[in-house]
Amino acid sequence: MEFASDNTSGVHPRILDAILAANAGPVASYGADPFTAAARRALADLFETEVHVTLVTTGSAANSLALSALVPPHGTVFCHGEAHINTDECGAPELFTGGAKLTPVSGRAAKITPEAIARVHRNFVRGFHQQLPAAVSITQATEFGAVYTAAEIAEIGAYCRAHGLHLHMDGARFANAVASTGARPADLTWKAGVDALSFGATKNGAMGVEAVVFFNAALAERFDFRVKRTGHVLSKGRFLGAQMAAYLADGLWLENARHANAMAARLAAGLSTLAGVRLATVPEANEVFAILPRPLHEALTASGAHYYDWPGDGPDGGGIGPDEVLVRFVCSFLTAEAEVDRLIALAGNPASEGAAR
Amino acid sequence: MEFASDNTSGVHPRILDAILAANAGPVASYGADPFTAAARRALADLFETEVHVTLVTTGSAANSLALSALVPPHGTVFCHGEAHINTDECGAPELFTGGAKLTPVSGRAAKITPEAIARVHRNFVRGFHQQLPAAVSITQATEFGAVYTAAEIAEIGAYCRAHGLHLHMDGARFANAVASTGARPADLTWKAGVDALSFGATKNGAMGVEAVVFFNAALAERFDFRVKRTGHVLSKGRFLGAQMAAYLADGLWLENARHANAMAARLAAGLSTLAGVRLATVPEANEVFAILPRPLHEALTASGAHYYDWPGDGPDGGGIGPDEVLVRFVCSFLTAEAEVDRLIALAGNPASEGAAR
Amino acid sequence: MEFASDNTSGVHPRILDAILAANAGPVASYGADPFTAAARRALADLFETEVHVTLVTTGSAANSLALSALVPPHGTVFCHGEAHINTDECGAPELFTGGAKLTPVSGRAAKITPEAIARVHRNFVRGFHQQLPAAVSITQATEFGAVYTAAEIAEIGAYCRAHGLHLHMDGARFANAVASTGARPADLTWKAGVDALSFGATKNGAMGVEAVVFFNAALAERFDFRVKRTGHVLSKGRFLGAQMAAYLADGLWLENARHANAMAARLAAGLSTLAGVRLATVPEANEVFAILPRPLHEALTASGAHYYDWPGDGPDGGGIGPDEVLVRFVCSFLTAEAEVDRLIALAGNPASEGAAR
Amino acid sequence: MEFASDNTSGVHPRILDAILAANAGPVASYGADPFTAAARRALADLFETEVHVTLVTTGSAANSLALSALVPPHGTVFCHGEAHINTDECGAPELFTGGAKLTPVSGRAAKITPEAIARVHRNFVRGFHQQLPAAVSITQATEFGAVYTAAEIAEIGAYCRAHGLHLHMDGARFANAVASTGARPADLTWKAGVDALSFGATKNGAMGVEAVVFFNAALAERFDFRVKRTGHVLSKGRFLGAQMAAYLADGLWLENARHANAMAARLAAGLSTLAGVRLATVPEANEVFAILPRPLHEALTASGAHYYDWPGDGPDGGGIGPDEVLVRFVCSFLTAEAEVDRLIALAGNPASEGAAR
Repeated sequence: MEFASDNTSGVHPRILDAILAANAGPVASYGADPFTAAARRALADLFETEVHVTLVTTGSAANSLALSALVPPHGTVFCHGEAHINTDECGAPELFTGGAKLTPVSGRAAKITPEAIARVHRNFVRGFHQQLPAAVSITQATEFGAVYTAAEIAEIGAYCRAHGLHLHMDGARFANAVASTGARPADLTWKAGVDALSFGATKNGAMGVEAVVFFNAALAERFDFRVKRTGHVLSKGRFLGAQMAAYLADGLWLENARHANAMAARLAAGLSTLAGVRLATVPEANEVFAILPRPLHEALTASGAHYYDWPGDGPDGGGIGPDEVLVRFVCSFLTAEAEVDRLIALAGNPASEGAAR
Repeated sequence: MEFASDNTSGVHPRILDAILAANAGPVASYGADPFTAAARRALADLFETEVHVTLVTTGSAANSLALSALVPPHGTVFCHGEAHINTDECGAPELFTGGAKLTPVSGRAAKITPEAIARVHRNFVRGFHQQLPAAVSITQATEFGAVYTAAEIAEIGAYCRAHGLHLHMDGARFANAVASTGARPADLTWKAGVDALSFGATKNGAMGVEAVVFFNAALAERFDFRVKRTGHVLSKGRFLGAQMAAYLADGLWLENARHANAMAARLAAGLSTLAGVRLATVPEANEVFAILPRPLHEALTASGAHYYDWPGDGPDGGGIGPDEVLVRFVCSFLTAEAEVDRLIALAGNPASEGAAR
Repeated sequence: MEFASDNTSGVHPRILDAILAANAGPVASYGADPFTAAARRALADLFETEVHVTLVTTGSAANSLALSALVPPHGTVFCHGEAHINTDECGAPELFTGGAKLTPVSGRAAKITPEAIARVHRNFVRGFHQQLPAAVSITQATEFGAVYTAAEIAEIGAYCRAHGLHLHMDGARFANAVASTGARPADLTWKAGVDALSFGATKNGAMGVEAVVFFNAALAERFDFRVKRTGHVLSKGRFLGAQMAAYLADGLWLENARHANAMAARLAAGLSTLAGVRLATVPEANEVFAILPRPLHEALTASGAHYYDWPGDGPDGGGIGPDEVLVRFVCSFLTAEAEVDRLIALAGNPASEGAAR
Repeated sequence: MEFASDNTSGVHPRILDAILAANAGPVASYGADPFTAAARRALADLFETEVHVTLVTTGSAANSLALSALVPPHGTVFCHGEAHINTDECGAPELFTGGAKLTPVSGRAAKITPEAIARVHRNFVRGFHQQLPAAVSITQATEFGAVYTAAEIAEIGAYCRAHGLHLHMDGARFANAVASTGARPADLTWKAGVDALSFGATKNGAMGVEAVVFFNAALAERFDFRVKRTGHVLSKGRFLGAQMAAYLADGLWLENARHANAMAARLAAGLSTLAGVRLATVPEANEVFAILPRPLHEALTASGAHYYDWPGDGPDGGGIGPDEVLVRFVCSFLTAEAEVDRLIALAGNPASEGAAR
């Protein structure tokens, strides 16, 4: 019963096969290989526009590198307080930008709105005494498993354009958001005003590859220098290219995401039938946040269910009782229906399996 | 009617005299001069202990340099969201620390407590995914003119020691806090657990000098290298030493602060008698935050009163009506009783002077 | 005829097999997996001592992260001017250390000696005006294919200890140096005073994995925070662990290096028989630097030989004629004898193949 | 006999008077005062063009801030290896630029030429593997007391324009260079291609003020944010403005520099008559570098002469015998003829005064 994270899963066989196939013969290093070129073309096709693409191995690198191109060292980025860049990257954005600040914005389920941004933005009246508002970063799907519609992103994009801010999207789970909304990738990104996207693949079946996608090539000027100085240019870049190309080929990325989302929906449906269990928020992608009675949580954990209790105040910023625990379940491309069902059965009768171990 | 800031005032005559006196003859540069040595001794006397002292020209430099010695680049500093280091130093703490984060803590009138720190601190359960809690920074007196008692600081100090955090105090208006509390400087600092203090003089009569005071010499190892690499080692350091020595001589620092505090109290008393005017918080040092009806604010400004309307939600984090304006008046060592009285008179009858201009 | 770099080769089959084998089932992420644990044990065995090991994907990351733990931001690192950290990492050391400087030291074939370090070191008499001498970094094998003996490293180590400097070794081609010297890894590293080693595998058959190995655990305190803030913690860390474990299993690392070195020796021997061709330095590892007549270089390139002409003044710091070209050939675990022989044959009769294309 | 540095002198009386005069009344803080405005106008007049001016307190700050606007964090600056920014600012350029590198260029007496720059520049063929050549920095007068002619600067400026490099001038002793060459300030700067100048005043009679002067306003965009984030915006900025305005008024800056230069010439002439003493280079500004027999150096020092022995290999990069000492004498606006003559007399008969002490 593995629901700890979508990154505890291994690699999809089609991506592994692509890695094997890429191994033949000598190939130019540092990304000047045909596999990376194919991945770039596939991303251009996917987004229906010219894109500037760089492949790196982690989401923290993708996000922080993108931000380093969008904001000056004396700038600030508006993002949700629970954004991954703010809570889970140990200061990589601050390092890569040369010291820019992340200014937290509030919002339900880690989503932000133009109004919420404006409530913080309007306090930036001190001129050079304060960091310069320079960008907005949103996460699609969010850290609480919510999804922005294309229209919601377009509103944020319009706010950004009106105020001279760049717009970054952390798309570590972008595939899940596309699967959830059914929207075209273009509509969720550049057509809505997104300047740069961290396009994730690792959580959704790759070994370790994320694309930094610029829709505005001017922002990517000398970007390769930025990547190199963070140690993120792999010499045998062909294996990043091969992963990304296979991930995008024949709709694998979307197929995987749909499966993970479906498993999350199945899990949420099951959990919501149980006495004492509440969904912390309606899952829109592949993550389920629930509030469990503490004894149930302890019994599940004792029975070998892998998932995390979650720090902080949850999607609503509160409402978790003293005898309750906020927890997160994540489904991946590998999650089996039977595994979901077993978890639900166990949660409905926690004594059973725990006793049997 | 000058209430814009305590730094719109010039220099106290006794400090100017000291600058003139320090000009005679050649003197060793870069702080190896007898004037700086005298300032160091005076600070050791004032704090009744050994101290490691460095003189710089600005509060932003003093704060950021101190923090750079207290936290690693992968660390975080807990401070109030309205702290000067968070809102008014354009990222100097982030730059000087190499990218450490400031994590905002809530509290009335920009004061924080161990409980408020703990509410944020307890969410740092992600290990290396999150920046390392490394220090707490408090401002004495706070950005909303409140003052910590020695006991309150000692509670924060105890929390810090219990959790392996260093404690920094931004004392840009430390003199005003001493004048307000009547406490001994030692009790407000190292005896309460403060590791490093930014000891301000500029706002209280100097031309431009602040001392970074370490009570824990181990933390100041190679600190001169840190100062030099930020361009804050003045070649003719004698003039910083002379300012600080004169500031501390014969109680000038405390005399100036008492005067400024008294003028603020007088101003607050006067304002609170006026219809429609509310104090946003009881002033405890030399700053008065008030909520004015917008028409009154406009009339005062039009009449030549210099003070700032203040961004944000004020000491209480809200409660300012749509037709009201939060404003800040600051009194300095130079503020005259007559000036205060004239402002109050004008505020009581705004048509009078405005019409006369 | 592929001699451009050892990183244009793919992955050794045994390492690919290990990657495939590691794919089964869910595994803890971020390096807390059994494969990484096995790699750590294997490195401890290899070095015959306790080690602190972190796996990353690039040599630039390994070097810069190691240095960030060895030097303060106001420090300097003595290294050869041709060191990879100085010329090929686009400032990653400067970024990761928070601004430390690399101070170039001279020496034949990119090797440095205590005497050469001392000639630069003795100019650091300006105290805090100058960056603090904090570390020495050497490359084993060097950028010009030379190798340090254990005794030579021990002399540098003694110098470092005598002067309070840490010692870092860039071991991107450490395996080739071990193969060349026949020395025990322990004697080339910690027994000679090395504090931290970047232990390369990528150039010698891995897909992309390098180990940062600390022999002094105190220097590695909170190192995981440093790694995370540079975006170098891979979520599916098992695949790094699996590569490194396979690389070390059954002597694969040494077997690959011996082959590459042997091919370089064969190439050098062949080239030195040719009229007009000089070895720029005697190859001691898997790189051959030669000085070719320009027409020969052009003919070889036209015939499809892949190798680089090399910027700068070469191993001797000069001596390259106006009609000559300094070039580098690199052999890898995949280089075939026939490929070497074909290159030599072509170089001996350049018209033949060029005409035949 | 004070020849240690031009910064061991105090402040010229006319500048002190200006500080006193600026003290009257409240004045807007942070540089928005009439004194700073007057200084800006005076600099525009001096340079006969529009300029963007920022006043800071140290030369390290001025240089590093200017460079931070001229080069990206992944860039490199070509400068002489003995440049103050490379040897005497403890990494401030690296910090303020976010990690850019200084690449040393050779040249006699710390002067560089287009040819010398090109010899280093041509090795930058590695693309993003190497830092991006972004600027050249020259010092006028140089660290060895040499002076660039307008024509020499124009040649460097032409090289920069041809290669997309910005040109910075460290003018800590710019006044001495103007006094030496007799050239118009415009001809030594923007007309010769200089983009940004650190215009010094501190060494030549001010208390502590240097101007960062941009001749290309586009490069200074948001420069005030950069200054603030380094803690270099003084609240009582009027005192920087007053110093700079007085320094420029009525030719004081040039008068002081002419005097200092004349004293250096007198000292050099006197020294060159002494047996065993050699000038290390012909002084062109206010610094004299000489090579003394060690016994003479020891006798002079014992007799109370203040000056420095100088690390490194001197203006010629060598030629100092084992029993010789390279020393530096600096003259300032305060150096008296009698002091010079006394030093020369003492050097001619070192036993005399030493015995008398």
